[in-house]
Amino acid sequence: MRSYEEIRDTVRAGLRALPCSLMLKNVRLVNVFSSEIYTTNIYIHNRRIVSIDPNATLEAMETVDCCGQYAVPGFIDTHMHFESTMLSPEALASLVVPAGTTTLCADLMEIANVAGGAGLKAMLESICHLPYRMLIEVSSRVPTAPGLETTGAYLGPQQVREIMDWPEAVSLGELDPSKILSVGEEYLEKIQETLQRRKIVNGHAIGRMGQELNVYASAGISDDHECVTTEEMLARLRAGMRVLIREGSTERNLDALIRGALQQHLPFENLMFCTDDKHAGEILREGHIDYNVARSIALGLPPIEAVKMATINAARHFRLEDEIGSISPGRLADILLVEDLSSMVPSRVYFEGKLVSENRRLTVECPVPSYPEWIKHTVSLKKDITAASFRKETQTASSETAVTVIDLIDQQIINRRFQAVLPVCNGEILSSPDQDVLKLAVVERYGKNGNIGIGFVRGFGLHSGALAYSMSHDHHNIVTVGTNDHDLATAVNCIADMQGGLCVVENGTVLKKMQLPIGGLMSERTADEVIAELDAMNAAVKRLGCRGNAPVMTLSFISLPTVPELGLTDRGLIDVISHKIIPVETGENPFSLG
Amino acid sequence: MRSYEEIRDTVRAGLRALPCSLMLKNVRLVNVFSSEIYTTNIYIHNRRIVSIDPNATLEAMETVDCCGQYAVPGFIDTHMHFESTMLSPEALASLVVPAGTTTLCADLMEIANVAGGAGLKAMLESICHLPYRMLIEVSSRVPTAPGLETTGAYLGPQQVREIMDWPEAVSLGELDPSKILSVGEEYLEKIQETLQRRKIVNGHAIGRMGQELNVYASAGISDDHECVTTEEMLARLRAGMRVLIREGSTERNLDALIRGALQQHLPFENLMFCTDDKHAGEILREGHIDYNVARSIALGLPPIEAVKMATINAARHFRLEDEIGSISPGRLADILLVEDLSSMVPSRVYFEGKLVSENRRLTVECPVPSYPEWIKHTVSLKKDITAASFRKETQTASSETAVTVIDLIDQQIINRRFQAVLPVCNGEILSSPDQDVLKLAVVERYGKNGNIGIGFVRGFGLHSGALAYSMSHDHHNIVTVGTNDHDLATAVNCIADMQGGLCVVENGTVLKKMQLPIGGLMSERTADEVIAELDAMNAAVKRLGCRGNAPVMTLSFISLPTVPELGLTDRGLIDVISHKIIPVETGENPFSLG
Repeated sequence: MRSYEEIRDTVRAGLRALPCSLMLKNVRLVNVFSSEIYTTNIYIHNRRIVSIDPNATLEAMETVDCCGQYAVPGFIDTHMHFESTMLSPEALASLVVPAGTTTLCADLMEIANVAGGAGLKAMLESICHLPYRMLIEVSSRVPTAPGLETTGAYLGPQQVREIMDWPEAVSLGELDPSKILSVGEEYLEKIQETLQRRKIVNGHAIGRMGQELNVYASAGISDDHECVTTEEMLARLRAGMRVLIREGSTERNLDALIRGALQQHLPFENLMFCTDDKHAGEILREGHIDYNVARSIALGLPPIEAVKMATINAARHFRLEDEIGSISPGRLADILLVEDLSSMVPSRVYFEGKLVSENRRLTVECPVPSYPEWIKHTVSLKKDITAASFRKETQTASSETAVTVIDLIDQQIINRRFQAVLPVCNGEILSSPDQDVLKLAVVERYGKNGNIGIGFVRGFGLHSGALAYSMSHDHHNIVTVGTNDHDLATAVNCIADMQGGLCVVENGTVLKKMQLPIGGLMSERTADEVIAELDAMNAAVKRLGCRGNAPVMTLSFISLPTVPELGLTDRGLIDVISHKIIPVETGENPFSLG
Repeated sequence: MRSYEEIRDTVRAGLRALPCSLMLKNVRLVNVFSSEIYTTNIYIHNRRIVSIDPNATLEAMETVDCCGQYAVPGFIDTHMHFESTMLSPEALASLVVPAGTTTLCADLMEIANVAGGAGLKAMLESICHLPYRMLIEVSSRVPTAPGLETTGAYLGPQQVREIMDWPEAVSLGELDPSKILSVGEEYLEKIQETLQRRKIVNGHAIGRMGQELNVYASAGISDDHECVTTEEMLARLRAGMRVLIREGSTERNLDALIRGALQQHLPFENLMFCTDDKHAGEILREGHIDYNVARSIALGLPPIEAVKMATINAARHFRLEDEIGSISPGRLADILLVEDLSSMVPSRVYFEGKLVSENRRLTVECPVPSYPEWIKHTVSLKKDITAASFRKETQTASSETAVTVIDLIDQQIINRRFQAVLPVCNGEILSSPDQDVLKLAVVERYGKNGNIGIGFVRGFGLHSGALAYSMSHDHHNIVTVGTNDHDLATAVNCIADMQGGLCVVENGTVLKKMQLPIGGLMSERTADEVIAELDAMNAAVKRLGCRGNAPVMTLSFISLPTVPELGLTDRGLIDVISHKIIPVETGENPFSLG
């Protein structure tokens, strides 16, 4: 938001009453309002653009000859969870800013589930000295599954209302369709409070079509980032929703949607880009929104339209086109200089009028500060954890029993329900590494009730040992999987000792651990360090026999009580479809019935 | 804005928990989000659209078979002064609603100059039972020329801030470029207050180009409705401003701008329509925004783009696309049924889900209520007005003297400066009907100071008599022109007796008068009556010899102290360029110098 002084000084600079701070001379301006590219100069005073008039002759303290490079507005990621990167906002800067992303619209639902509004505030405070801005999509579901999980915090309508008044709050974050289709009062209240403030409501309409989609849109939902097919994209446009084309680490929708939009001659004005969940390593290797733009151009989208999707379309959607999204007088001077529009590699990045990146490296220091102690102490175990904590009791007199198992699907966050027969010994159900059925547990970590949910999972492939992680969507208790209860206990205690993180244990020894002290979710180390640590961690897990490409990510999503078919929380095994806690043991052996 | 109950009931109707109130069956939907036209049904519950899904099968209390007519979103006029119509909001309904306009974005600067925030409130109160909505562009210049005119009210930053918090307030109204280019603190404060509330600032950039336009835009101005040429339109788009294509009574910019946009392949997404000042008679004969749409299509604009300019582009500009501008789930059900897209004649108009017009006639009663007495008593003369009040003194001993005269240009509101030599008798400068130089006066009418500004005008052509009017832009004192001082006095006293209006006088007799009691600006009669009265008034003026097509309108703009080259206010003759009061008598006879 502009202060009075800022408006005045921008005008005065344009009138030559003050010198401009910077002139970017001889650019080919990508003008997203007139949809043209033409040669001009850009005058900047402090944070803002003063003039783009080719004939203006203003004084400037510094002049940079851009030698005909393209000047492109800074890119906007319209929906992302930065906790997925495991990076602090400071470390993230080193990855996304050189790639040209100057605005992140972040749904910080992970930190919100751990630490509520205070957690959001701490994140925002860390941002204010960084070379990008973070706008807040205020999490609509903290907790995601009320009654089925224990979380560190709760954001009800009252809390959402307060956060929505913050200037950084631009929308209500991805509202779950089931909350609307069940006429969830609390969620409708949150929508009302948001719309009343002239802010928007983000959607999250996985697979919904037809009348369900119309009902969802009718509640006031403005967009969806879960489109996978052209048919879904068209259905959302028809329902008056905009589409945030997602290209993340696992969910890769860009090729299909851009191809579909081109083939079906859809209008581009209601399309924009997001990453949702993109891991640090992939951002480093592939890029961020710059990748989305370049890839879209490679698929045949006109460059000006690709740039508009990454800039003005997003700014307009969030009702911020007077501040960001274009290189126009009065806007914040977020400007990329680009040699070649089709590859879209920024040679320089200006954020709010300051050079912040050159040749893909930050030119400003972004040291990770020490975060406040309270946010680094979010792990508190109510009870001592020992191997006995993970004993799964049974009443059966038989030597085996049937259980409902979470059956993983490689590279997907959805899973299937599977019936396994497991051995019983001394009134306890045992896991069966031979069948690749391992014990899975979720340990409440907010010091509230000491709940431990115990279940079984198939598909992890561990031969021995255990791993544990304090990021387990969306409640972020400690999730652990392993071949024996002793290693489970060692792993969980290791996480608690570190106040959050990730570890691999074998025979009572911690083989590898990675600290994630910020809310138990994010590291205080640099991006390069985090990427290396995570690679080492995945390698250690694989040495224990684990299959799958991203075991750590798989582990963090097993616990989600909202993605079909099953989830495990500290309250127990969840049937996602019926939204109920179900028994692990079914008490029948399906094979013995045959 | 939606209430919680409205969100809930819309959702419940979509879930079949409540019956819909209306089903519009078998429409060809003009979908401005997907830019498609396809056959479907529209379900409505109370004010809002529930579903447009072709496969939905909901229950509805009433079903209307639309037999394949097009369903088009209600039109939006993005900038208009309804005082220019002389009609009350009730009477205006009978003209604009059958033409398909369901939203007026009104800068009520005339009533604001007369009666301030209370005047705006009174207008809004009259609107709430009418079949269209009025959104307020909060007047940025009350008064327009501080220090150069007396107005009834003052809207400073504090008043603007209060009004901007009203839900109907959507923007700060047309900010004068001179206020920005002179770094007017009060105006920058108003901008800051507006942007802080996530509302927009409307422009009014007559003729400004290049660096001046960039400075203007840099203050946070979002649009301009004063473009006359394609070059001006392109300059505004390049500066990050949207263009409101105006087609009013006198300012007719549509043909040039639509032709230009088509020829130069400009993007349409930042273009929309407005009328600014369109008189009742012309709305009746020609239409309103429907005319702009149909005319644009006739000029070659694709129908879907023409509809988008009249609907979603406007809604998005004002950040109201979640409420109006499209036929989508959750939006207010403002729907036109149209047989033929190119002629764009609405056979039916639905406003907020209710049928309000059929076959170009309102189907709901809109009786003009009696307005509050205070708003019908806004004329108060501080001093008695007699012929002597209009005596223009001179010190010259000569029998003639040179004076600066306002020289009219037919059908334009701008004028030229002209030097005339007028006779002097008994220390008084006389008018000269032979040269068509008549006396012009502006009488302060708010009971504040009794000022009378006296000057001379050429080009009216009156042989005898006088006319007077209580709408004189933008201060709305009583403006009068005539061949003799007795008739001037009679005319002004007639206006005061009527508490506002318009009259024609000859030889001490009122030939014709028309009451405009609402703020001295608007009638309490029906549109048909007002149109007939005004036609009779113009005819009476012409019988006195008056030239020009619209003498009444010409009279109301002579007094404007902000349109070049000259204006006359109660404070005296105004040099618009230098923004100063100048003497009428120049004291030299240019001819005698030769």
